[in-house]
Amino acid sequence: LIRDHVSALLRDVAEGRISPDEALLGLTLAPLEAIDVATIDHHRALRQGFPEVILAQGKTAAQVVDVAAHLARRGDGFLVTRAGDEVRAALSERFPAVIVNDVGRTVRLEGNQPPARRAGPVLIVTAGTSDLPVAEEAAETAAALGDEVARLTDVGVAGIHRLLSRGGMLLQARVVIVVAGMDGALPSVVGGLVAAPVIAVPTSVGYGASLGGLAALLAMLNSCAAGVTVVNIDNGFGAAMAAARITRALASGGPP
Amino acid sequence: LIRDHVSALLRDVAEGRISPDEALLGLTLAPLEAIDVATIDHHRALRQGFPEVILAQGKTAAQVVDVAAHLARRGDGFLVTRAGDEVRAALSERFPAVIVNDVGRTVRLEGNQPPARRAGPVLIVTAGTSDLPVAEEAAETAAALGDEVARLTDVGVAGIHRLLSRGGMLLQARVVIVVAGMDGALPSVVGGLVAAPVIAVPTSVGYGASLGGLAALLAMLNSCAAGVTVVNIDNGFGAAMAAARITRALASGGPP
Amino acid sequence: LIRDHVSALLRDVAEGRISPDEALLGLTLAPLEAIDVATIDHHRALRQGFPEVILAQGKTAAQVVDVAAHLARRGDGFLVTRAGDEVRAALSERFPAVIVNDVGRTVRLEGNQPPARRAGPVLIVTAGTSDLPVAEEAAETAAALGDEVARLTDVGVAGIHRLLSRGGMLLQARVVIVVAGMDGALPSVVGGLVAAPVIAVPTSVGYGASLGGLAALLAMLNSCAAGVTVVNIDNGFGAAMAAARITRALASGGPP
Amino acid sequence: LIRDHVSALLRDVAEGRISPDEALLGLTLAPLEAIDVATIDHHRALRQGFPEVILAQGKTAAQVVDVAAHLARRGDGFLVTRAGDEVRAALSERFPAVIVNDVGRTVRLEGNQPPARRAGPVLIVTAGTSDLPVAEEAAETAAALGDEVARLTDVGVAGIHRLLSRGGMLLQARVVIVVAGMDGALPSVVGGLVAAPVIAVPTSVGYGASLGGLAALLAMLNSCAAGVTVVNIDNGFGAAMAAARITRALASGGPP
Amino acid sequence: LIRDHVSALLRDVAEGRISPDEALLGLTLAPLEAIDVATIDHHRALRQGFPEVILAQGKTAAQVVDVAAHLARRGDGFLVTRAGDEVRAALSERFPAVIVNDVGRTVRLEGNQPPARRAGPVLIVTAGTSDLPVAEEAAETAAALGDEVARLTDVGVAGIHRLLSRGGMLLQARVVIVVAGMDGALPSVVGGLVAAPVIAVPTSVGYGASLGGLAALLAMLNSCAAGVTVVNIDNGFGAAMAAARITRALASGGPP
Amino acid sequence: LIRDHVSALLRDVAEGRISPDEALLGLTLAPLEAIDVATIDHHRALRQGFPEVILAQGKTAAQVVDVAAHLARRGDGFLVTRAGDEVRAALSERFPAVIVNDVGRTVRLEGNQPPARRAGPVLIVTAGTSDLPVAEEAAETAAALGDEVARLTDVGVAGIHRLLSRGGMLLQARVVIVVAGMDGALPSVVGGLVAAPVIAVPTSVGYGASLGGLAALLAMLNSCAAGVTVVNIDNGFGAAMAAARITRALASGGPP
Amino acid sequence: LIRDHVSALLRDVAEGRISPDEALLGLTLAPLEAIDVATIDHHRALRQGFPEVILAQGKTAAQVVDVAAHLARRGDGFLVTRAGDEVRAALSERFPAVIVNDVGRTVRLEGNQPPARRAGPVLIVTAGTSDLPVAEEAAETAAALGDEVARLTDVGVAGIHRLLSRGGMLLQARVVIVVAGMDGALPSVVGGLVAAPVIAVPTSVGYGASLGGLAALLAMLNSCAAGVTVVNIDNGFGAAMAAARITRALASGGPP
Amino acid sequence: LIRDHVSALLRDVAEGRISPDEALLGLTLAPLEAIDVATIDHHRALRQGFPEVILAQGKTAAQVVDVAAHLARRGDGFLVTRAGDEVRAALSERFPAVIVNDVGRTVRLEGNQPPARRAGPVLIVTAGTSDLPVAEEAAETAAALGDEVARLTDVGVAGIHRLLSRGGMLLQARVVIVVAGMDGALPSVVGGLVAAPVIAVPTSVGYGASLGGLAALLAMLNSCAAGVTVVNIDNGFGAAMAAARITRALASGGPP
Repeated sequence: LIRDHVSALLRDVAEGRISPDEALLGLTLAPLEAIDVATIDHHRALRQGFPEVILAQGKTAAQVVDVAAHLARRGDGFLVTRAGDEVRAALSERFPAVIVNDVGRTVRLEGNQPPARRAGPVLIVTAGTSDLPVAEEAAETAAALGDEVARLTDVGVAGIHRLLSRGGMLLQARVVIVVAGMDGALPSVVGGLVAAPVIAVPTSVGYGASLGGLAALLAMLNSCAAGVTVVNIDNGFGAAMAAARITRALASGGPP
Repeated sequence: LIRDHVSALLRDVAEGRISPDEALLGLTLAPLEAIDVATIDHHRALRQGFPEVILAQGKTAAQVVDVAAHLARRGDGFLVTRAGDEVRAALSERFPAVIVNDVGRTVRLEGNQPPARRAGPVLIVTAGTSDLPVAEEAAETAAALGDEVARLTDVGVAGIHRLLSRGGMLLQARVVIVVAGMDGALPSVVGGLVAAPVIAVPTSVGYGASLGGLAALLAMLNSCAAGVTVVNIDNGFGAAMAAARITRALASGGPP
Repeated sequence: LIRDHVSALLRDVAEGRISPDEALLGLTLAPLEAIDVATIDHHRALRQGFPEVILAQGKTAAQVVDVAAHLARRGDGFLVTRAGDEVRAALSERFPAVIVNDVGRTVRLEGNQPPARRAGPVLIVTAGTSDLPVAEEAAETAAALGDEVARLTDVGVAGIHRLLSRGGMLLQARVVIVVAGMDGALPSVVGGLVAAPVIAVPTSVGYGASLGGLAALLAMLNSCAAGVTVVNIDNGFGAAMAAARITRALASGGPP
Repeated sequence: LIRDHVSALLRDVAEGRISPDEALLGLTLAPLEAIDVATIDHHRALRQGFPEVILAQGKTAAQVVDVAAHLARRGDGFLVTRAGDEVRAALSERFPAVIVNDVGRTVRLEGNQPPARRAGPVLIVTAGTSDLPVAEEAAETAAALGDEVARLTDVGVAGIHRLLSRGGMLLQARVVIVVAGMDGALPSVVGGLVAAPVIAVPTSVGYGASLGGLAALLAMLNSCAAGVTVVNIDNGFGAAMAAARITRALASGGPP
Repeated sequence: LIRDHVSALLRDVAEGRISPDEALLGLTLAPLEAIDVATIDHHRALRQGFPEVILAQGKTAAQVVDVAAHLARRGDGFLVTRAGDEVRAALSERFPAVIVNDVGRTVRLEGNQPPARRAGPVLIVTAGTSDLPVAEEAAETAAALGDEVARLTDVGVAGIHRLLSRGGMLLQARVVIVVAGMDGALPSVVGGLVAAPVIAVPTSVGYGASLGGLAALLAMLNSCAAGVTVVNIDNGFGAAMAAARITRALASGGPP
Repeated sequence: LIRDHVSALLRDVAEGRISPDEALLGLTLAPLEAIDVATIDHHRALRQGFPEVILAQGKTAAQVVDVAAHLARRGDGFLVTRAGDEVRAALSERFPAVIVNDVGRTVRLEGNQPPARRAGPVLIVTAGTSDLPVAEEAAETAAALGDEVARLTDVGVAGIHRLLSRGGMLLQARVVIVVAGMDGALPSVVGGLVAAPVIAVPTSVGYGASLGGLAALLAMLNSCAAGVTVVNIDNGFGAAMAAARITRALASGGPP
Repeated sequence: LIRDHVSALLRDVAEGRISPDEALLGLTLAPLEAIDVATIDHHRALRQGFPEVILAQGKTAAQVVDVAAHLARRGDGFLVTRAGDEVRAALSERFPAVIVNDVGRTVRLEGNQPPARRAGPVLIVTAGTSDLPVAEEAAETAAALGDEVARLTDVGVAGIHRLLSRGGMLLQARVVIVVAGMDGALPSVVGGLVAAPVIAVPTSVGYGASLGGLAALLAMLNSCAAGVTVVNIDNGFGAAMAAARITRALASGGPP
Repeated sequence: LIRDHVSALLRDVAEGRISPDEALLGLTLAPLEAIDVATIDHHRALRQGFPEVILAQGKTAAQVVDVAAHLARRGDGFLVTRAGDEVRAALSERFPAVIVNDVGRTVRLEGNQPPARRAGPVLIVTAGTSDLPVAEEAAETAAALGDEVARLTDVGVAGIHRLLSRGGMLLQARVVIVVAGMDGALPSVVGGLVAAPVIAVPTSVGYGASLGGLAALLAMLNSCAAGVTVVNIDNGFGAAMAAARITRALASGGPP
């Protein structure tokens, strides 16, 4: 192992077997291996603080339960996304303490050291009821990461008064995640109303020229509201991760 | 000529040289040619009532002036679209009575029998100032076709209050043409506010993922406001033609 | 609630507790919430007059029946679109009075106050028999909205005489909806024959380079007949909604 | 040279230096080189009979004149396509006998042994005047290949009577080339009217959602008239080549 | 009926009730309806001579059998394409005389007056075994239309000698249909070897960047062999129809 | 004006001319106009705090100078983006105090009340030197908005050690903007190294299959680092706006 | 057969019945058939040395077993790719000696004369666990072709230290195959670290804007590391074939 | 500098100020900076051995000359690609010893220590003369990297005998680069004929449905010849770099 190699090298220096210059040469000759993986991984966990996430899609229920059990044994907690009916049932049976979200198709278990709750909501705004699965995936991910979550649903732009009448809710959010399919118009309106960070999530809701969500994605990338950012189609998970990058910085008050 | 052929046939019947049945056979044996072109064209002009339109794009100024002069001599009037600086200058010099629109790049001349003015405005709503050339092409076309035109400009959805504050104007329109590039979100909002026919025109305003207006086009085709229709990118002319199909029906009160 | 807030504010003014200027400030400080949602929704219903529509796609039969029952109890009537076999069966059983269209996959129930029938047909022209499901969705929607419907089927342009021989039908329509897949050529021919509004509906009929209806959609957007408008692929519902925006204006004679 | 190698091998066999079996082995060990290039090229010329074609696009006028001069010296004749103003001028000056087509941007010179004229026209049908450059490229290519050419122009489907009134012309064509941009609808109508081979040429005429001719191309590939074939966008040259493959077979009466 | 109307008009002329000029006016006032539909359809049948084709895709076995029975009763014969296992079984049971092609998924029945057999083969060249279903659809269609069929299979360009060794077969074909997926390269090689008409059929064989056959389609449209024409992806039927347009002209020797 | 209308209404209530209920009705009957535009705009300015931005693209130098002069007279400051050589020269001459960035093609003038400087850098990481124009547009926008800017350039992933050796800089950033064209790989690496918010900007740098930046855009949307967000191609301005939404929240410590 | 024809020709020469020149003419007159197919195929086998590969996709288990049995009887060995559960089970039962790879969905049997093992590994680097099926297809193909295989898995760029810590493995590889979906970023990093040939394989892992692997494919084609080559999406087989073309040249030391 | 930091750390260990364990911790706490950049860059140069390449596209002649001068002063040599007329002229004037390739638009200067010439040609096969600029870019790059280059031009598949007659040349190549636009068919034929590594380069030669080279690119990615790899459109440079990765391994005989 590299760690052993570097460790041995340092011992050789300490005991005078090789000079510091020779050790330096030794380190630089193998530069790509000079990094202690375990240590970095440890650091990374500290820095990133994200619980382990299991993407259930493409895995059997048994496989998901196995990985989840491994994490639970370590007391780590987990978040399972894109979990179909069978996966959700299997996890519920095995881990009675889990929180299941049927709409968002997620299952999560708090770890022994859950992230500290952060004040101020991440607001998840949804254009139509068909967008709810993506919105709920975002909501559960945000909750798993320690964020307070607020929801504003069915406020698509074709009935603009529904959105406007909830202006207060918009203005109090710390980060706004906007979930919309079809014309992807909602983030532009929201982005013009609030000064907070706005993360747009296109969904694959629609048919024909919606091209599986590409129409909404393109609309959002071309938002006429400045400073709106976008994640992949149906990526509620990624939007919540992006929000958590922001709320953590807000919570710590300093460089993240 | 076919007309002569049919005419001769009818004369033969009248004078007993052939029986009606033989004439019928004669007509059906040449079925595709049994239509008098000139007559139809005359009928079509009556039915459609559209003045002659010259698409200047891809033509020299001299070519455009030639065609325009031909129409003017007949007293027909004309509408020239996509007219560049040189074309507009050449037409202005040759026909002092023309109405030139520099933003919309159009030049038009009223004919001796201009279409009757129809009451109630066609309202042209524009998202941003960059969309004005397309909006003005629509406005000039509508005017050439006999429609009263109203304009509501720079009311993009990122500043939704600007649109909402002009609600009265929206509610009084007979037909609404909505011109927008980038995210193409405006027709969805307008379509939710008014019950009148809404024609959406995507523009090629934008860059990168706007894909030359495809992003706006797709968004409009997926509008979450029901019953919004769409024309080609930058097709202000076509939108006004579509509007005139409606306003004429409104004016006549019966089947068009 | 906002209504209460504004109401209280007004009472304060009436009773002299605050001055009109203070009230004005109060209203403008919360501008986004100054709209009474219920009232608007009521107004919107009056203006739009559309019955409630349930998109069955993505919902279970039980869910659809639930929503339908809710509407029926209010005496509102409903229109269910994209209703599969199971959904249609469930609705038929529960609401014996419904009108079921198996080809168009729709089920509808008239409300206590159905929209007034409007004279003059919306003509639905169909290129091939494979396009009928979309055409029938349009027909049922138009009927639900109070429009008289006429049909002209299997008149694709590869047998142009079939269309031409029905010229009278075309000329008597108030609005023409043209439904076509594959090459999407039919709206261009129809748009050249009639002066009435023409709404083109591309369908996903075809394979290979039809790209799920994109070929027909693009052809229609590039129609060489001026003033043809287009809706999303397979969107029979949207085409009928667009037609109703027009026929209502025709029926009222004034601004819609 | 391979020919020499094979020739030597055969002489060795004739003179008994090697056995037939050894020669066979020699031939098969170098199988890919066992073909006499010159002979094939000669054969191919006989079989294909196409005059030499120079694509001027991307070449300077001087380069085109050089190649043309080389061919002319051999008495072969030539056809230059996509020839800009400068190229056409340079060729006209150098070869006074050339036939120049300014619309089609072609220049051609008959060779000493021009192909025999074949009876029965290749009919070139054009949707709009903007499609003429492509149509004329086809016409000149067809003429260069020995085909009689007929033209039917400006018969787009939005004025279907113009096409129908020329039914006789359509029915007398041996091969029909249909040139159309925008919605690409014309080949479907023509394909339904005639039993002759129909070759569709999409053009890049249009803007926005015409996608540089892709809309017309896709429409033609999805033609609802069976047995219509398609060539590349703006490829008038290729369409005429395809037509000549057919008319030659017709002229010879047997396998081509 | 129009026929009656025109017939009455002619009788009025014959009997002096109206003048030929008045009758001419009468005909032109209803120009779009002046065509005798039945007659045209009769003519078209004569001109086109294609047996009735049933596209089984999207129909139940019972529906296909119904239509087929209707045609069989008239003694017309039929060709069913895209016929799945169930459809083929149902047709075989009902019509013992049918010719079934399991690879091509076709079933056909000769009519009482089958088209005359035409000499000289339509050669169907196939790149790989996965392309056979499309090739066999073409072969059965060609046979149904009266063409003699020859086959050359599994001669993809990655083993070019297999194709070259069958040069004689290529040179004797009257029309060549080339069926290929993946890189779509085969028509270019074949087009360079033969002077006969070449019709290229891209197939959806492949995965990933084959984009469902689009890669092969685009390659064929850009064929470096001049005069190769293309039909839609997997459209073996259309290719054979295009071939028949050619072979009929060859058989009749004159204008089709 | 609406304000006057509401004001009058309130005075009527104060003076007993109408009851509060009547006033409420009055307000709700004109709901869309019940918002005082000026007030909202004022509020919006407070909330958003963005200086005025002029997109020079598509405007003449004179037009840009005009708008800029108008803003400068009000003491507002401005930021001009996509400013070509001529525009930059014209602005420099007219406003000697402007800060010109030739690489980023921006010109900006501080207003009388510039935004407060916020601590902690927005780090702009750039893959290659060709990406610098977009990066500098972002840098100037960020500076105009009050953000401290740090730069890390030419650290593309094909020389990963260059990026890794600057790990400290990465870890100290409050927000990281990553600008990359071609393969768009850099944000994934950066997103895995830092916990701060990461905003990815694809650029149109590249050729062929880069499709004008679409390749990089798609790669970034599919980033394997969770929580990376994306803006439009070449949209350095938008990325800085998104960053400012975050840094303002960080600066205020509370809901934005 | 051609061989017989040429053989006869040579015997005629040997026995003086025809002159060498006449034989040469005879050979050139039938140039396309002058190649002995069997011989070439034999040569090709020698040159290419690839075992027979059966693509199971689209074949029944019975069909695959049939082909495999045919090859096994000849002692040739085989490699079956894209083999589903049923196919793998059927082959295992019939050929107990096969090597089955469940992840890579391959089954292979060594022939009597397996290719010589070549020293120095082909290293297969994989971004994520979802990419393993493609990586294992590559690994099994490489093994079947005689290459030593090494694996480096789950080293995606979002955790760049995992890759860097295995630098030694990278530097010792003779050829590197890099398998990645989503953002396709890994080949750029690997290509910058090693001087060996790098073959990138995009996978269809991902959703939404991954467009079935197109995003990764485009990223790889635009790799900022020079000299990286790419194969089709999910084409592990093709990557290993490409690698074998290289390792064979390395093994032979001379022209392949 | 990091090097200094690590150096100091090692000295502390040597002199007993800190223990090896503390040093290890120190190294791992700053893991991302623990790599000596200069050393790596030196190593990389040794490993990669590529001369410096300047992409002239997007740079002024003066800028290119500046960078070139900097390299020349160090005695390094350079290769300038995509060099327009002006750039080539400027470099020729400043560096009389350069080798200029006008077709390939390259300029190169040998360094003081040019790479050792490697035996065995890299063969560059070109479909048509329009593909020569890309082929020559590849040829010059290969030469600059120390490879012997052979050329086989104008051997497109529509005249397959031209390619086949040069079989010997194909069989003697160590690596084959195949350059083709339009249908991109040539690599499939070449890949089937040779066992050597084949690198396919699509070019943007073509128009219409060639989509700027995408048609050729897709065809090549779907090549029916196994083990063909592909680089970006027009990327002659990248193809030669990929070839050099292979030829170097061949030259060294061991792991690269």
